[in-house]
Amino acid sequence: MTENEMMNLINRSLFATIGYTDEQGRQNVRRVFCVWHKGIGRHLISTNTSSSHVQSLMNNPNVCLYFSDDSTFEGICLYGTAVIHQDREYKQLLWNEGDEKYYPKGIDDEDYCILEIIADGARYYRFDGKGELSKTQIEALDSGKEFENGYAKISK
Amino acid sequence: MTENEMMNLINRSLFATIGYTDEQGRQNVRRVFCVWHKGIGRHLISTNTSSSHVQSLMNNPNVCLYFSDDSTFEGICLYGTAVIHQDREYKQLLWNEGDEKYYPKGIDDEDYCILEIIADGARYYRFDGKGELSKTQIEALDSGKEFENGYAKISK
Repeated sequence: MTENEMMNLINRSLFATIGYTDEQGRQNVRRVFCVWHKGIGRHLISTNTSSSHVQSLMNNPNVCLYFSDDSTFEGICLYGTAVIHQDREYKQLLWNEGDEKYYPKGIDDEDYCILEIIADGARYYRFDGKGELSKTQIEALDSGKEFENGYAKISK
Repeated sequence: MTENEMMNLINRSLFATIGYTDEQGRQNVRRVFCVWHKGIGRHLISTNTSSSHVQSLMNNPNVCLYFSDDSTFEGICLYGTAVIHQDREYKQLLWNEGDEKYYPKGIDDEDYCILEIIADGARYYRFDGKGELSKTQIEALDSGKEFENGYAKISK
């Protein structure tokens, strides 16, 4: 897959899957709404601070994030670290009108947080083969990029 | 979610996501075609013995299997163990005409194997709440059931 094909898969996905180790030491996965991307290597997810995957990632930040399209048999798995942001800058960027139904106290609700996934490596899968990206390759591809809502961008 | 609602989510899914620890000790996930189920607790997946998720599960059989529907906001995650079957009984059950394109030597191709996921517990998520199932509860619900192609059954 080319950089553009990977970026297109990521941008057209509304949801992705995170893989992590939970507080009982089990493998666990969770489906998350994920449309804010900074190239291939960084992704933001708004979520409840109290949710079990956030609590598990506070304990063990090793994580993977998987974007896939069952209809085209494409997938990309990013391996790295989860960072939990509580600062207003991130929380404001991802806030949508109506989010009060999830976070009654608004942007500063302490149960509202932003999960950032930072990739150290990636592996992609497609009918025509698979391949790997190193941390250095991801950083080179993503150089100079900013966070943007990729889904909004391509559905314009 | 009721047993029927969980079983319906599992049966109507063509694909599921497995979560595991790979040979580099990373969290990893993989999308798999998964239509053979024995109730809620046991699932069969035909795959390549040489694939990285099978090799990783031989090393560390702790696994989770996640069925979800993004359009209805339903998900069920099963936690347990992976068993790799090489015996003809399983390989014949899941064999489809035309599978020679994946496994040129046919049913007995040593690169063809059946991955069984056996759940010790489950957690389900829906807009109206979440809940857990213990191993004992899963065994009671699944008592007397046999493996069947759930997708073929409901799409008749």
